[in-house]
Amino acid sequence: MDMAPGTVEKLLGGLLEGDVLAASRLITLVENESPVAQEIMRRVSRFTGNAYVLGITGPPGAGKSTIVDKLVPLFRRQGLSVGVLCIDPTSPFSGGAFLGDRVRMSLSSRDEGVFIRSLANRGELGGLAPRAKEVIQLLDALGKDVIIVETVGAGQVEADILNWADTVLVVTVPGLGDQMQLLKAGIMEIADLFVVNKADLEGAQDMVRDLNLMLDGLPRRGWRPGVLTAVAFKNQGMDRLHEAIQEHKEYLLQTGQWQEKRYRRREVTCLFMVEEALKRYVQQKIKEVAGLSGLMERVKRGEMDPYTGADCLIKELLAQMTR
Amino acid sequence: MDMAPGTVEKLLGGLLEGDVLAASRLITLVENESPVAQEIMRRVSRFTGNAYVLGITGPPGAGKSTIVDKLVPLFRRQGLSVGVLCIDPTSPFSGGAFLGDRVRMSLSSRDEGVFIRSLANRGELGGLAPRAKEVIQLLDALGKDVIIVETVGAGQVEADILNWADTVLVVTVPGLGDQMQLLKAGIMEIADLFVVNKADLEGAQDMVRDLNLMLDGLPRRGWRPGVLTAVAFKNQGMDRLHEAIQEHKEYLLQTGQWQEKRYRRREVTCLFMVEEALKRYVQQKIKEVAGLSGLMERVKRGEMDPYTGADCLIKELLAQMTR
Repeated sequence: MDMAPGTVEKLLGGLLEGDVLAASRLITLVENESPVAQEIMRRVSRFTGNAYVLGITGPPGAGKSTIVDKLVPLFRRQGLSVGVLCIDPTSPFSGGAFLGDRVRMSLSSRDEGVFIRSLANRGELGGLAPRAKEVIQLLDALGKDVIIVETVGAGQVEADILNWADTVLVVTVPGLGDQMQLLKAGIMEIADLFVVNKADLEGAQDMVRDLNLMLDGLPRRGWRPGVLTAVAFKNQGMDRLHEAIQEHKEYLLQTGQWQEKRYRRREVTCLFMVEEALKRYVQQKIKEVAGLSGLMERVKRGEMDPYTGADCLIKELLAQMTR
Repeated sequence: MDMAPGTVEKLLGGLLEGDVLAASRLITLVENESPVAQEIMRRVSRFTGNAYVLGITGPPGAGKSTIVDKLVPLFRRQGLSVGVLCIDPTSPFSGGAFLGDRVRMSLSSRDEGVFIRSLANRGELGGLAPRAKEVIQLLDALGKDVIIVETVGAGQVEADILNWADTVLVVTVPGLGDQMQLLKAGIMEIADLFVVNKADLEGAQDMVRDLNLMLDGLPRRGWRPGVLTAVAFKNQGMDRLHEAIQEHKEYLLQTGQWQEKRYRRREVTCLFMVEEALKRYVQQKIKEVAGLSGLMERVKRGEMDPYTGADCLIKELLAQMTR
């Protein structure tokens, strides 16, 4: 896509003034990995770190979207602006229910203080790495006070996003069967808050008890995740949930973890950029330098195993650099 | 885990002689990322590349395990030994059905020429990277002629595995709803063969037609994936499916893609090892070298944006190396 000179400049100006259309266009540029995406992020970076990021995860059908839909007005009533980001599930086989969920979110979307965006995958197997962290930063720079990120599953993409969040809320429902799966996948370890939704269904209290037992069994310092109940579509339990979320935010601020998280995000972003640059550098060198491409040829043909090959390549690469 | 000296040696010897217990122990060592894992892979590497790797993917409930269960005897009847590898889904919320599937596979498991193994995730959010490719290589070295890898979903882990396979078989069922999800996630692009299972259900023929239309719409050179039908649990359509799989294997051999895939696997493994080593090197340097850790500190505190920080770090790193 060709852009008139100064377009990014104007869009960034708009973003910082709270212009939603400018934000939308910038998000699209970043999502599609436009050549200007990195420059956008570089410029936006110092205007980030102010928003409170709430990550929400849980199985399909647990009512995550309803929870979000009911939470948004509670934040709005506090005078806070809200951004909502929905991450497509990574499975190509579970996309059906997702669109239905989106429709339910229509109420909040009529409020001008609320910005809603879905991130789709980019049509590449395994390449489902929507630029969620970048979009969070754009919404942050847009001036949103609260950014809610809704995601299913626990793949690498979701883990990255949940690790980025200030608070991780796990939504479950009674009758999901084997809760041990949560434990196995490391969800218990990163959750800051649980809500058992559809708590009018049978088994809700059992689930609360089980979750509490599991939480008691985990080694822990500091914050102990609460297990709440709600019937989101009837608006039951939502005030208490909203309160608990604020308590966790307060805890982060008071313990210095709020600041620590922002330090960590910048460090992770920087390290990632360094590693990506080095990867490109190495691949380039292997193509260009005869000694290196010869080594790789031997590995490809099976004359040298890939592990010994890697050792030799690293040695050669470092020698190349010092020449 | 402490091991007696020479244990790995003995296990490797056993593996190459077809000892299933030795294979199991080596797989466990590799799966648990034992300190000897890399040495094991280094030693095993040159005994790999002989097996035919069949990747099977599709939504939960499509009958993947039944398909595997019915295919195994057909390979066995050809006198081929078979290894079956089941990769846990990456979602902590969909583990329920999985165990049920495993039970059905009990028939084949009584046959000594069949080795079955499930790879579980390692209890870390997003860290669901079972060492599938390594285990495939161990089964290859064990002498299995055919290795069937069954996986759900299309996250990064699954994509890596399917790209590793010689043939990718996608199992679908009528009434799954939006087939466009397959297209979106890039499944169509990497599939070599489709089978519409439970083809006695309504909508099967529509699905075959739709898949064919979608396949016709894709740019393609060479192999055109077939769309077959089956009712696996009644053993219907399985001979034809088995035939089609062999046709694709034949195609790979005749076009040189068989060899090309093995070159590519070794190259990818080697590059991955180089990149991991460089990552560790960089993180070490940032800790040790005052100039670098100072830079990172400034990035963390937000005095320099992470992108500019990365540029400076790379420049400094290269300067460090040439000193």
